[in-house]
Amino acid sequence: MMARTGTAREKILDAALKLVRAKGFSATSVDDLCAEAGVTKGAFFHHFASKEALGVAAAEHWSTLTTKLFAGAPYHLVADPLERLLAYLQFRRDILRGELAEFTCLVGTMVQEVYAEHPAIGAACQASISGHAATLEPDIAAAMRARGWEPDGSGTGWSAASLALHTQAVLQGAFILAKAKGGPAIAEESVDHLSRYIRMLFGSLQTRPTN
Amino acid sequence: MMARTGTAREKILDAALKLVRAKGFSATSVDDLCAEAGVTKGAFFHHFASKEALGVAAAEHWSTLTTKLFAGAPYHLVADPLERLLAYLQFRRDILRGELAEFTCLVGTMVQEVYAEHPAIGAACQASISGHAATLEPDIAAAMRARGWEPDGSGTGWSAASLALHTQAVLQGAFILAKAKGGPAIAEESVDHLSRYIRMLFGSLQTRPTN
Repeated sequence: MMARTGTAREKILDAALKLVRAKGFSATSVDDLCAEAGVTKGAFFHHFASKEALGVAAAEHWSTLTTKLFAGAPYHLVADPLERLLAYLQFRRDILRGELAEFTCLVGTMVQEVYAEHPAIGAACQASISGHAATLEPDIAAAMRARGWEPDGSGTGWSAASLALHTQAVLQGAFILAKAKGGPAIAEESVDHLSRYIRMLFGSLQTRPTN
Repeated sequence: MMARTGTAREKILDAALKLVRAKGFSATSVDDLCAEAGVTKGAFFHHFASKEALGVAAAEHWSTLTTKLFAGAPYHLVADPLERLLAYLQFRRDILRGELAEFTCLVGTMVQEVYAEHPAIGAACQASISGHAATLEPDIAAAMRARGWEPDGSGTGWSAASLALHTQAVLQGAFILAKAKGGPAIAEESVDHLSRYIRMLFGSLQTRPTN
């Protein structure tokens, strides 16, 4: 999966994405990163002042890559805002493929470990998660307005921002259960529960089974 | 919070609960654990053959402690199975208090990092998460049967087991967002979304706001 092209900096960042998702930030040493990237320790410290600086840059690199991935995904072609949000969740479900280290989240993994010890990395992870959640807010807000609801949550008790972040909480938790269970099936079920919640929330699904 | 009484083994396990929740498993060294527990390295290796063995024992210790905590919690006094499940979620929401390292989950934190490198720890974390989820299944199954639904999911498309695990996915993801955001507020909102989902799923809440 890893591109061996690119600058030394890019190679180190790609190595961080691979190794940190496989074994966490703390267990990934600078030596591991250099070996995986095929660069010298001198090159590493030319580009990154410290392992912490690499962690911050890796979170930013992750944001750049995932922003591109989601911007180019087919769910944007769906016309209706609610259906577009549900197509986003279907896309998230569809990409739960391959090895756990390939489909789980770099920034969720890093912030889990380093939130207290490396606040700078934690802040970069928070920016990545919240930035991605924010891309969902306009569609949620539009779907709310189409039903005469205020996106700030007055009347409904939940806001567009809150629901957008909840989708990310479910995905992050689904990754943890996938790691615990050794595969994506359990994560798919959580995405299905989330999609069912959103359909019910917007009133487009019966709450009782038909049989 | 940490009890300084108990055997050396218990002190080491309590130290692991504190340190791993604060900085992760990999960043917690045997020296850190000995210093926190006030025991010698000789005592550590008398009780645990390796740091991995300590990780497995810490997950099992966590299961024992949390099983006691939840077994003694007031939600069991609620008579109706659905309301008891919702009271459980309210209890989970109520205990999102204090420092992040005090209310987040040891086994979710460990499995996030070590699932690939230490499968024995991953298995102990999986047993802890699934064992806790299983305590919710009888109430979900009873609430389903009371509505004429099959707990195995035929007809509904979701089973009691699947919903029980989904509650744990939401909680685990909520912990990650709490760590990213530096406090429990976002986790409370995710628990509220989950409670709203479950009420709607069982048909006891309107899907549209009343205003």
